[in-house]
Amino acid sequence: MKLLQERIRQEGLILSDTVLKVDSFLNHQVDTQLALEIGKEFARIFGGKTITKVLTIEASGIQFAMAAAIALGVPFVYAKKKKAVTLAENVYSAPVHSFTRQETYQVSVSQKYLNPGDKVLIVDDFLATGAALVGLVDIVKESGAELMGVGCVIEKSFQEGRGLLEERGVEVHSLARIASMSPGEVHFVEDQPIIQKV
Amino acid sequence: MKLLQERIRQEGLILSDTVLKVDSFLNHQVDTQLALEIGKEFARIFGGKTITKVLTIEASGIQFAMAAAIALGVPFVYAKKKKAVTLAENVYSAPVHSFTRQETYQVSVSQKYLNPGDKVLIVDDFLATGAALVGLVDIVKESGAELMGVGCVIEKSFQEGRGLLEERGVEVHSLARIASMSPGEVHFVEDQPIIQKV
Repeated sequence: MKLLQERIRQEGLILSDTVLKVDSFLNHQVDTQLALEIGKEFARIFGGKTITKVLTIEASGIQFAMAAAIALGVPFVYAKKKKAVTLAENVYSAPVHSFTRQETYQVSVSQKYLNPGDKVLIVDDFLATGAALVGLVDIVKESGAELMGVGCVIEKSFQEGRGLLEERGVEVHSLARIASMSPGEVHFVEDQPIIQKV
Repeated sequence: MKLLQERIRQEGLILSDTVLKVDSFLNHQVDTQLALEIGKEFARIFGGKTITKVLTIEASGIQFAMAAAIALGVPFVYAKKKKAVTLAENVYSAPVHSFTRQETYQVSVSQKYLNPGDKVLIVDDFLATGAALVGLVDIVKESGAELMGVGCVIEKSFQEGRGLLEERGVEVHSLARIASMSPGEVHFVEDQPIIQKV
Protein backbone atom coordinates (compact mmCIF):
# COMPACT_ATOMS: atom_id res chain seq x y z
CA MET A 1 0.00 0.00 0.00
CA LYS A 2 1.94 2.96 -1.36
CA LEU A 3 0.19 5.62 0.75
CA LEU A 4 1.20 3.76 3.91
CA GLN A 5 4.79 3.14 2.77
CA GLU A 6 5.18 6.85 2.03
CA ARG A 7 3.96 7.79 5.51
CA ILE A 8 6.34 5.31 7.09
CA ARG A 9 9.22 6.83 5.10
CA GLN A 10 8.16 10.37 6.03
CA GLU A 11 7.11 9.98 9.66
CA GLY A 12 8.38 6.63 10.93
CA LEU A 13 11.16 6.87 13.50
CA ILE A 14 13.68 4.08 13.12
CA LEU A 15 15.35 3.69 16.49
CA SER A 16 17.43 0.62 15.63
CA ASP A 17 17.60 -2.25 13.13
CA THR A 18 14.45 -3.71 14.70
CA VAL A 19 12.53 -0.85 16.35
CA LEU A 20 10.22 1.36 14.27
CA LYS A 21 8.03 4.00 15.92
CA VAL A 22 4.90 5.03 14.06
CA ASP A 23 3.11 6.67 16.97
CA SER A 24 2.51 9.98 15.17
CA PHE A 25 -0.02 8.43 12.78
CA LEU A 26 -0.80 4.78 13.62
CA ASN A 27 -0.61 3.74 17.25
CA HIS A 28 -0.73 6.64 19.70
CA GLN A 29 -1.94 9.53 17.59
CA VAL A 30 -4.05 8.04 14.79
CA ASP A 31 -4.63 9.57 11.37
CA THR A 32 -8.28 8.61 11.10
CA GLN A 33 -8.42 8.99 7.31
CA LEU A 34 -5.39 6.76 6.85
CA ALA A 35 -6.87 4.18 9.23
CA LEU A 36 -10.07 4.11 7.14
CA GLU A 37 -8.01 3.64 3.95
CA ILE A 38 -6.18 0.75 5.64
CA GLY A 39 -9.55 -0.80 6.46
CA LYS A 40 -10.68 -0.46 2.85
CA GLU A 41 -7.48 -2.11 1.67
CA PHE A 42 -8.05 -5.10 3.99
CA ALA A 43 -11.62 -5.32 2.68
CA ARG A 44 -10.32 -5.22 -0.90
CA ILE A 45 -7.79 -8.00 -0.21
CA PHE A 46 -10.02 -10.31 1.83
CA GLY A 47 -13.49 -9.16 0.78
CA GLY A 48 -13.75 -11.79 -1.97
CA LYS A 49 -14.26 -14.26 0.88
CA THR A 50 -17.31 -14.07 3.08
CA ILE A 51 -16.23 -12.61 6.42
CA THR A 52 -18.60 -12.40 9.39
CA LYS A 53 -16.30 -10.99 12.03
CA VAL A 54 -12.97 -9.20 12.45
CA LEU A 55 -10.80 -10.18 15.42
CA THR A 56 -7.91 -8.24 16.93
CA ILE A 57 -6.14 -7.74 20.24
CA GLU A 58 -6.21 -4.68 22.50
CA ALA A 59 -5.05 -1.97 22.31
CA SER A 60 -3.39 -0.88 19.08
CA GLY A 61 -5.16 -3.39 16.86
CA ILE A 62 -8.53 -1.82 17.63
CA GLN A 63 -8.42 1.12 15.21
CA PHE A 64 -7.51 -1.14 12.27
CA ALA A 65 -9.99 -3.88 13.15
CA MET A 66 -12.66 -1.21 13.38
CA ALA A 67 -11.66 0.27 10.02
CA ALA A 68 -11.73 -3.18 8.37
CA ALA A 69 -15.06 -3.98 10.07
CA ILE A 70 -16.54 -0.69 8.78
CA ALA A 71 -15.39 -1.49 5.24
CA LEU A 72 -16.70 -5.07 5.45
CA GLY A 73 -19.94 -4.14 7.23
CA VAL A 74 -19.42 -6.62 10.11
CA PRO A 75 -18.77 -6.38 13.87
CA PHE A 76 -15.33 -6.77 15.38
CA VAL A 77 -14.06 -8.36 18.58
CA TYR A 78 -10.94 -7.40 20.49
CA ALA A 79 -9.20 -9.99 22.61
CA LYS A 80 -8.23 -8.88 26.11
CA LYS A 81 -4.75 -9.16 27.56
CA LYS A 82 -4.53 -10.34 31.11
CA LYS A 83 -1.62 -11.06 33.33
CA ALA A 84 -3.75 -13.29 35.52
CA VAL A 85 -2.75 -16.93 35.41
CA THR A 86 -6.16 -18.04 36.58
CA LEU A 87 -8.49 -18.22 33.63
CA ALA A 88 -11.96 -16.82 33.67
CA GLU A 89 -14.67 -19.28 32.71
CA ASN A 90 -16.32 -19.28 29.32
CA VAL A 91 -13.39 -17.79 27.44
CA TYR A 92 -11.10 -19.09 24.74
CA SER A 93 -7.58 -18.20 25.71
CA ALA A 94 -3.96 -18.63 24.72
CA PRO A 95 -0.68 -17.72 26.40
CA VAL A 96 1.42 -15.13 24.56
CA HIS A 97 5.04 -14.34 25.35
CA SER A 98 6.01 -10.70 24.86
CA PHE A 99 9.66 -10.46 23.86
CA THR A 100 9.63 -6.70 24.36
CA ARG A 101 8.42 -6.91 27.94
CA GLN A 102 9.84 -10.35 28.72
CA GLU A 103 6.63 -11.59 30.24
CA THR A 104 3.86 -14.01 29.37
CA TYR A 105 0.24 -12.92 29.41
CA GLN A 106 -3.08 -14.56 28.58
CA VAL A 107 -5.09 -13.44 25.59
CA SER A 108 -8.77 -14.21 25.90
CA VAL A 109 -12.04 -13.93 24.00
CA SER A 110 -15.48 -14.65 25.42
CA GLN A 111 -16.90 -17.86 23.98
CA LYS A 112 -20.09 -15.93 23.22
CA TYR A 113 -18.43 -13.92 20.46
CA LEU A 114 -16.71 -16.60 18.38
CA ASN A 115 -18.86 -19.40 17.00
CA PRO A 116 -18.43 -22.34 14.63
CA GLY A 117 -20.45 -20.49 11.99
CA ASP A 118 -18.11 -17.46 12.01
CA LYS A 119 -15.67 -16.68 9.20
CA VAL A 120 -12.96 -14.63 10.87
CA LEU A 121 -10.43 -12.13 9.59
CA ILE A 122 -7.67 -11.39 12.12
CA VAL A 123 -6.20 -7.87 11.92
CA ASP A 124 -3.31 -6.31 13.85
CA ASP A 125 -0.98 -3.35 13.63
CA PHE A 126 2.37 -5.19 13.61
CA LEU A 127 3.57 -8.63 12.53
CA ALA A 128 7.02 -9.29 13.98
CA THR A 129 7.62 -12.36 16.17
CA GLY A 130 4.03 -13.38 15.51
CA ALA A 131 3.46 -14.34 19.15
CA ALA A 132 0.20 -12.45 19.63
CA LEU A 133 -1.14 -13.45 16.21
CA VAL A 134 -0.38 -17.14 16.74
CA GLY A 135 -2.34 -16.84 19.99
CA LEU A 136 -5.31 -15.36 18.13
CA VAL A 137 -5.09 -18.09 15.45
CA ASP A 138 -5.17 -20.75 18.19
CA ILE A 139 -8.22 -19.07 19.75
CA VAL A 140 -10.08 -19.07 16.41
CA LYS A 141 -9.26 -22.77 15.93
CA GLU A 142 -10.39 -23.59 19.46
CA SER A 143 -13.73 -21.83 18.81
CA GLY A 144 -14.47 -23.89 15.71
CA ALA A 145 -14.82 -20.72 13.62
CA GLU A 146 -13.21 -20.62 10.19
CA LEU A 147 -10.09 -18.48 9.81
CA MET A 148 -10.13 -16.58 6.51
CA GLY A 149 -6.75 -14.92 6.90
CA VAL A 150 -4.53 -12.50 8.80
CA GLY A 151 -4.09 -8.88 7.76
CA CYS A 152 -1.32 -6.75 9.26
CA VAL A 153 -0.60 -3.11 8.77
CA ILE A 154 3.20 -3.34 9.07
CA GLU A 155 5.27 -6.50 8.81
CA LYS A 156 8.88 -6.83 9.87
CA SER A 157 9.64 -9.43 7.25
CA PHE A 158 13.07 -10.09 8.75
CA GLN A 159 11.44 -11.60 11.83
CA GLU A 160 9.84 -15.02 12.12
CA GLY A 161 6.15 -14.12 12.47
CA ARG A 162 5.04 -14.72 8.88
CA GLY A 163 6.78 -18.10 8.82
CA LEU A 164 5.04 -19.23 12.01
CA LEU A 165 1.63 -18.27 10.60
CA GLU A 166 2.24 -19.83 7.19
CA GLU A 167 3.40 -23.07 8.85
CA ARG A 168 -0.10 -23.18 10.33
CA GLY A 169 -1.63 -22.83 6.87
CA VAL A 170 -2.72 -19.22 7.43
CA GLU A 171 -2.97 -16.74 4.54
CA VAL A 172 -1.11 -13.57 5.54
CA HIS A 173 -1.27 -10.14 3.90
CA SER A 174 0.60 -7.11 5.18
CA LEU A 175 0.18 -3.62 3.78
CA ALA A 176 3.81 -2.56 4.31
CA ARG A 177 6.46 -5.29 4.43
CA ILE A 178 9.78 -4.09 5.76
CA ALA A 179 12.72 -6.08 4.39
CA SER A 180 15.29 -4.25 6.49
CA MET A 181 15.81 -0.98 8.25
CA SER A 182 18.45 1.08 9.96
CA PRO A 183 18.32 4.59 11.40
CA GLY A 184 17.27 6.91 8.56
CA GLU A 185 16.56 4.09 6.08
CA VAL A 186 13.75 1.65 5.47
CA HIS A 187 13.57 -0.92 2.68
CA PHE A 188 10.28 -2.53 1.73
CA VAL A 189 9.87 -5.99 0.23
CA GLU A 190 8.98 -5.23 -3.35
CA ASP A 191 5.44 -6.19 -4.24
CA GLN A 192 6.54 -7.00 -7.76
CA PRO A 193 10.02 -8.46 -7.52
CA ILE A 194 10.27 -8.76 -11.31
CA ILE A 195 10.74 -5.01 -11.64
CA GLN A 196 14.31 -4.41 -10.56
CA LYS A 197 15.26 -1.10 -9.02
CA VAL A 198 18.83 -0.06 -9.79
CA MET B 1 -29.49 8.67 22.54
CA LYS B 2 -32.55 6.44 22.22
CA LEU B 3 -30.87 3.84 19.97
CA LEU B 4 -28.17 3.29 22.60
CA GLN B 5 -30.60 3.17 25.51
CA GLU B 6 -32.63 0.52 23.70
CA ARG B 7 -29.55 -1.62 23.14
CA ILE B 8 -28.59 -1.31 26.80
CA ARG B 9 -32.08 -2.44 27.81
CA GLN B 10 -31.99 -5.33 25.34
CA GLU B 11 -28.42 -6.56 25.65
CA GLY B 12 -26.88 -5.03 28.75
CA LEU B 13 -26.20 -7.50 31.56
CA ILE B 14 -26.79 -5.95 34.96
CA LEU B 15 -24.72 -7.98 37.40
CA SER B 16 -25.38 -5.82 40.47
CA ASP B 17 -26.54 -2.32 41.44
CA THR B 18 -23.27 -0.94 40.07
CA VAL B 19 -21.95 -3.40 37.44
CA LEU B 20 -23.28 -3.27 33.88
CA LYS B 21 -21.77 -5.48 31.15
CA VAL B 22 -22.13 -4.24 27.59
CA ASP B 23 -19.48 -6.46 26.04
CA SER B 24 -21.75 -7.91 23.37
CA PHE B 25 -21.96 -4.60 21.48
CA LEU B 26 -19.68 -1.92 22.98
CA ASN B 27 -16.46 -3.06 24.63
CA HIS B 28 -15.41 -6.58 23.66
CA GLN B 29 -17.51 -7.33 20.63
CA VAL B 30 -18.26 -4.00 18.96
CA ASP B 31 -21.28 -3.21 16.78
CA THR B 32 -19.43 -1.09 14.24
CA GLN B 33 -22.56 0.65 12.94
CA LEU B 34 -23.65 1.62 16.45
CA ALA B 35 -20.14 2.89 17.23
CA LEU B 36 -20.28 5.11 14.11
CA GLU B 37 -23.68 6.46 15.19
CA ILE B 38 -22.23 7.22 18.63
CA GLY B 39 -19.42 9.12 16.93
CA LYS B 40 -21.93 11.14 14.89
CA GLU B 41 -23.87 11.98 18.05
CA PHE B 42 -20.71 13.29 19.75
CA ALA B 43 -19.97 15.35 16.64
CA ARG B 44 -23.52 16.73 16.69
CA ILE B 45 -23.27 17.69 20.38
CA PHE B 46 -19.76 19.18 20.31
CA GLY B 47 -19.34 20.00 16.63
CA GLY B 48 -20.54 23.59 17.07
CA LYS B 49 -17.17 24.20 18.70
CA THR B 50 -14.00 23.92 16.69
CA ILE B 51 -12.29 20.67 17.68
CA THR B 52 -8.84 19.76 16.42
CA LYS B 53 -8.26 16.47 18.26
CA VAL B 54 -10.12 13.74 20.11
CA LEU B 55 -8.41 12.23 23.17
CA THR B 56 -9.21 8.94 24.89
CA ILE B 57 -7.55 6.21 26.94
CA GLU B 58 -6.71 2.66 25.89
CA ALA B 59 -8.33 0.25 25.34
CA SER B 60 -12.12 0.52 25.26
CA GLY B 61 -12.24 4.24 24.57
CA ILE B 62 -10.51 3.74 21.22
CA GLN B 63 -13.53 2.68 19.14
CA PHE B 64 -15.58 5.68 20.28
CA ALA B 65 -12.75 8.19 19.94
CA MET B 66 -12.20 6.88 16.44
CA ALA B 67 -15.90 7.14 15.59
CA ALA B 68 -16.04 10.73 16.90
CA ALA B 69 -12.81 11.59 15.06
CA ILE B 70 -14.24 10.19 11.82
CA ALA B 71 -17.40 12.28 12.23
CA LEU B 72 -15.39 15.41 13.09
CA GLY B 73 -12.71 14.85 10.45
CA VAL B 74 -9.80 15.11 12.91
CA PRO B 75 -7.13 12.74 14.30
CA PHE B 76 -7.43 11.10 17.70
CA VAL B 77 -4.89 10.24 20.39
CA TYR B 78 -5.17 7.44 22.92
CA ALA B 79 -3.41 7.78 26.24
CA LYS B 80 -1.41 4.75 27.37
CA LYS B 81 -1.80 3.05 30.71
CA LYS B 82 1.38 2.04 32.44
CA LYS B 83 2.01 0.44 35.74
CA ALA B 84 5.57 1.73 35.75
CA VAL B 85 6.24 4.28 38.46
CA THR B 86 9.20 5.70 36.57
CA LEU B 87 7.96 8.18 34.01
CA ALA B 88 9.19 8.26 30.48
CA GLU B 89 10.51 11.62 29.33
CA ASN B 90 8.56 13.94 27.09
CA VAL B 91 5.13 12.76 28.20
CA TYR B 92 2.29 14.42 30.01
CA SER B 93 1.09 12.04 32.67
CA ALA B 94 -1.30 11.68 35.58
CA PRO B 95 -1.83 8.98 38.21
CA VAL B 96 -5.18 7.21 38.06
CA HIS B 97 -6.55 4.99 40.78
CA SER B 98 -8.63 2.06 39.56
CA PHE B 99 -11.28 1.17 42.13
CA THR B 100 -12.11 -2.04 40.25
CA ARG B 101 -8.55 -3.32 40.34
CA GLN B 102 -7.46 -1.52 43.50
CA GLU B 103 -4.27 -0.27 41.92
CA THR B 104 -2.83 3.01 40.71
CA TYR B 105 -1.43 3.34 37.23
CA GLN B 106 0.04 6.17 35.17
CA VAL B 107 -1.80 7.53 32.15
CA SER B 108 0.47 9.23 29.67
CA VAL B 109 0.41 11.08 26.37
CA SER B 110 3.44 12.07 24.33
CA GLN B 111 4.03 15.82 24.48
CA LYS B 112 4.29 15.78 20.69
CA TYR B 113 0.58 15.08 20.26
CA LEU B 114 -1.04 17.70 22.50
CA ASN B 115 -0.18 21.33 21.86
CA PRO B 116 -1.32 24.73 23.13
CA GLY B 117 -3.11 25.32 19.82
CA ASP B 118 -5.24 22.16 20.16
CA LYS B 119 -8.94 22.21 21.01
CA VAL B 120 -9.56 18.82 22.55
CA LEU B 121 -12.67 16.69 22.97
CA ILE B 122 -12.19 13.85 25.47
CA VAL B 123 -14.22 10.69 24.78
CA ASP B 124 -14.57 7.48 26.81
CA ASP B 125 -16.87 4.50 27.10
CA PHE B 126 -17.86 4.84 30.77
CA LEU B 127 -18.16 7.70 33.25
CA ALA B 128 -18.42 6.29 36.78
CA THR B 129 -15.89 7.35 39.44
CA GLY B 130 -14.37 9.70 36.89
CA ALA B 131 -10.84 8.74 37.89
CA ALA B 132 -9.50 8.10 34.38
CA LEU B 133 -11.31 11.13 32.92
CA VAL B 134 -10.01 13.49 35.60
CA GLY B 135 -6.53 12.19 34.72
CA LEU B 136 -7.11 13.03 31.04
CA VAL B 137 -8.46 16.48 31.94
CA ASP B 138 -5.31 17.16 33.98
CA ILE B 139 -3.16 16.06 31.04
CA VAL B 140 -4.97 18.43 28.66
CA LYS B 141 -4.51 21.31 31.13
CA GLU B 142 -0.82 20.47 31.56
CA SER B 143 -0.34 20.55 27.77
CA GLY B 144 -1.80 24.04 27.41
CA ALA B 145 -4.40 22.77 24.95
CA GLU B 146 -7.99 23.95 25.30
CA LEU B 147 -10.52 21.42 26.61
CA MET B 148 -13.81 21.66 24.73
CA GLY B 149 -15.67 19.02 26.70
CA VAL B 150 -16.00 15.39 27.73
CA GLY B 151 -18.27 12.95 25.91
CA CYS B 152 -19.11 9.58 27.46
CA VAL B 153 -21.07 6.72 25.99
CA ILE B 154 -22.57 5.48 29.28
CA GLU B 155 -22.71 7.41 32.54
CA LYS B 156 -23.47 5.90 35.92
CA SER B 157 -25.09 9.06 37.22
CA PHE B 158 -25.30 7.63 40.73
CA GLN B 159 -21.50 7.74 41.00
CA GLU B 160 -19.36 10.79 41.58
CA GLY B 161 -17.61 11.15 38.20
CA ARG B 162 -19.78 13.88 36.68
CA GLY B 163 -19.52 15.99 39.84
CA LEU B 164 -15.72 15.77 39.85
CA LEU B 165 -15.55 16.90 36.22
CA GLU B 166 -18.08 19.71 36.63
CA GLU B 167 -16.21 21.00 39.70
CA ARG B 168 -13.30 21.48 37.31
CA GLY B 169 -15.48 23.53 34.96
CA VAL B 170 -15.72 20.77 32.36
CA GLU B 171 -18.79 20.42 30.10
CA VAL B 172 -19.93 16.78 30.22
CA HIS B 173 -22.34 15.01 27.86
CA SER B 174 -23.21 11.33 28.12
CA LEU B 175 -25.32 9.48 25.59
CA ALA B 176 -26.98 7.16 28.12
CA ARG B 177 -27.24 8.36 31.73
CA ILE B 178 -28.15 5.61 34.13
CA ALA B 179 -30.01 6.90 37.19
CA SER B 180 -30.15 3.50 38.87
CA MET B 181 -30.05 -0.18 38.05
CA SER B 182 -30.62 -3.57 39.57
CA PRO B 183 -30.57 -7.05 38.00
CA GLY B 184 -33.15 -7.00 35.22
CA GLU B 185 -33.87 -3.27 35.44
CA VAL B 186 -32.20 -0.07 34.27
CA HIS B 187 -33.53 3.45 34.74
CA PHE B 188 -32.19 6.32 32.68
CA VAL B 189 -32.04 9.95 33.74
CA GLU B 190 -34.78 11.58 31.72
CA ASP B 191 -33.42 13.99 29.13
CA GLN B 192 -36.48 16.21 29.46
CA PRO B 193 -37.55 16.13 33.09
CA ILE B 194 -40.46 18.53 32.38
CA ILE B 195 -42.42 15.78 30.68
CA GLN B 196 -43.65 13.62 33.52
CA LYS B 197 -44.15 9.95 32.97
CA VAL B 198 -46.95 8.47 35.05
